[in-house]
Amino acid sequence: MITADDVDGLAARDWQQADAEDGPVRVAMIGIGWWTRDRAIPAAEASELCETTVAVSSSIEKAADAVEGHPTIDEAITYEEFHEGAASEAYDAVYIATPNTVHPQYAETAAELGKAILCEKPMADRTDRAAEMLEATQGTTLMIAYRMHTEPIVRRMRELVQQGFVGEVVEIRGRMSQRLLEMIPDPDQWRLDPDLSGYGASVMDLGIYPLNTARFVLDSDPERVQASMYSVSENFAAVPDERASFLLDFPNGAVASCAASQNAFKDDRFVVIGTEGSLRMRNAFHSGDGRELVLERDGARTTLDVEPVDQMVEEFDYFADRVLRGETPHPDGEHGLFDMRALEAIYAAAERDEPVPIDA
Amino acid sequence: MITADDVDGLAARDWQQADAEDGPVRVAMIGIGWWTRDRAIPAAEASELCETTVAVSSSIEKAADAVEGHPTIDEAITYEEFHEGAASEAYDAVYIATPNTVHPQYAETAAELGKAILCEKPMADRTDRAAEMLEATQGTTLMIAYRMHTEPIVRRMRELVQQGFVGEVVEIRGRMSQRLLEMIPDPDQWRLDPDLSGYGASVMDLGIYPLNTARFVLDSDPERVQASMYSVSENFAAVPDERASFLLDFPNGAVASCAASQNAFKDDRFVVIGTEGSLRMRNAFHSGDGRELVLERDGARTTLDVEPVDQMVEEFDYFADRVLRGETPHPDGEHGLFDMRALEAIYAAAERDEPVPIDA
Repeated sequence: MITADDVDGLAARDWQQADAEDGPVRVAMIGIGWWTRDRAIPAAEASELCETTVAVSSSIEKAADAVEGHPTIDEAITYEEFHEGAASEAYDAVYIATPNTVHPQYAETAAELGKAILCEKPMADRTDRAAEMLEATQGTTLMIAYRMHTEPIVRRMRELVQQGFVGEVVEIRGRMSQRLLEMIPDPDQWRLDPDLSGYGASVMDLGIYPLNTARFVLDSDPERVQASMYSVSENFAAVPDERASFLLDFPNGAVASCAASQNAFKDDRFVVIGTEGSLRMRNAFHSGDGRELVLERDGARTTLDVEPVDQMVEEFDYFADRVLRGETPHPDGEHGLFDMRALEAIYAAAERDEPVPIDA
Repeated sequence: MITADDVDGLAARDWQQADAEDGPVRVAMIGIGWWTRDRAIPAAEASELCETTVAVSSSIEKAADAVEGHPTIDEAITYEEFHEGAASEAYDAVYIATPNTVHPQYAETAAELGKAILCEKPMADRTDRAAEMLEATQGTTLMIAYRMHTEPIVRRMRELVQQGFVGEVVEIRGRMSQRLLEMIPDPDQWRLDPDLSGYGASVMDLGIYPLNTARFVLDSDPERVQASMYSVSENFAAVPDERASFLLDFPNGAVASCAASQNAFKDDRFVVIGTEGSLRMRNAFHSGDGRELVLERDGARTTLDVEPVDQMVEEFDYFADRVLRGETPHPDGEHGLFDMRALEAIYAAAERDEPVPIDA
């Protein structure tokens, strides 16, 4: 029988051990685009264990705007100044939310300066550069910002699968789509430019959600991939994946069928079907929407619909909790590097019209 | 604005022109398994334009059981007697619901006797035999029993897609699964025997639903397929597809990702995602469940939840309507043959580990 304790525990932070007195971890925000301004900086402010103390941007004006009136940001510096070590006594960690291709350079400088690193997904633009980045950051804490790992609904899915709620896992389905050019009406934006984004636009930015969430929920890694990609619109001519569908073969005969598109009606789902039950997450990946989990087994359907958390607050506190206690985050550099190998294989499979194994 | 007429029309038979006085079409039921006894015979009885007059079975006992006390079934004959032309003056059409491998022989005899044919899907066990069956039935009406074609919710989906409700179609998702051995606890049943079923168990019987429904809703045919199949349980050792996931590439860059399993929690979905909206059908394929269609575009979500029809009644009346008016059914032999080519390609893609084109 489901008890009050069970319900109370649904959104609890089962992972937190540090508390406010242990911190705060002072964060330098690298890249002051809309995401950092609207989600990351407010999240650090709302978090228990972090605070933003430095803003790093291409221009002093942008950084100064972020600083103006902010209760804890004291310093605004340029990317150049950051690489030169400016204000390094003012922060303990960096949050990197820049175009993929420059993740490695900021991570490498941060590591040289002895700073912990929270870096947005995907880790980098290409596998080889991600491997170099991993090598360069061995001496510090590196976490890849997979916000699903601290989303309570996803953590409950993972536990349920591990406990055998669905029986043997048979099939996973995941998709994420949006109309990027309505959200950011700039055809020259970095996500549509392979030099800045990497292998493509839809799988690198959106398809990575069902890929990584499947890995996390199953606690298992895919072994090979098949894919179909199409770009049909002018604005997507430079990338192969305006639309992408791919199959990931996991061990034990479980297959994830995933899809992603930067030019489709907003949609996001994540479903696990097993021999004995199913778990279905609605509003799965887009931030800001409350998630819902529907659990089914013979004779009963249960819906979990918890008060939505701010996923960025959870992520920042998890990062800080690990930094303060000297623990390795679950989504560390090795974890992020595997995704890069998987992403590379997905694009290769579509280009070569054949299944591609994912190198471990 | 949605009007009363719109709502009244949702489940209307937009396809019917014949009426009861034009009929009835007298049907010989070939194969008296649970499906025919529990679904087909009652459906013919409830239909406006059909009635069952003959039962054909492997044993006189089985056929006689069906006849006993039935208001319209006058004759019970064996398969042998059927092939010899027994009782041929007592029926106008046949309904074939036997193991796939024997569909062709009953269809061919029926065609020789000048009878119309409603044959369960898939058309046959193998493409070559289905092609011979098509050839042999050229002189009569042949319809393959795709009950989704007369399911009002699916017809509305087809119209909505054609009218551009979702914009350009980007992605289709469909799945059907059940635990066959709980429904029919016989490991030696025909669906698990390639000699009787054909290429496999899950895609032939269940995966054909998302395959064919995607073709019907898009009014378009897939050009190539990629697939992954696994059989992990002892009872499925003879077939390659205890579990199957496959990608169908349609023209214009739309991809359907489909899955099927005869050994998974009961589940069925069919979803169309476009550039401007989505259509999501729950309880999509299992007969007997009321279907629901969720339509989404910017700013609005509408759910259609019509009084469930008996899909077999709709199908029998559609068949009879076409027979009475001398019209070709939409799911005719050519339509059924394309599915056989697609099914063959799906199994080949999984076996050969490479994309396989579907011969037109």
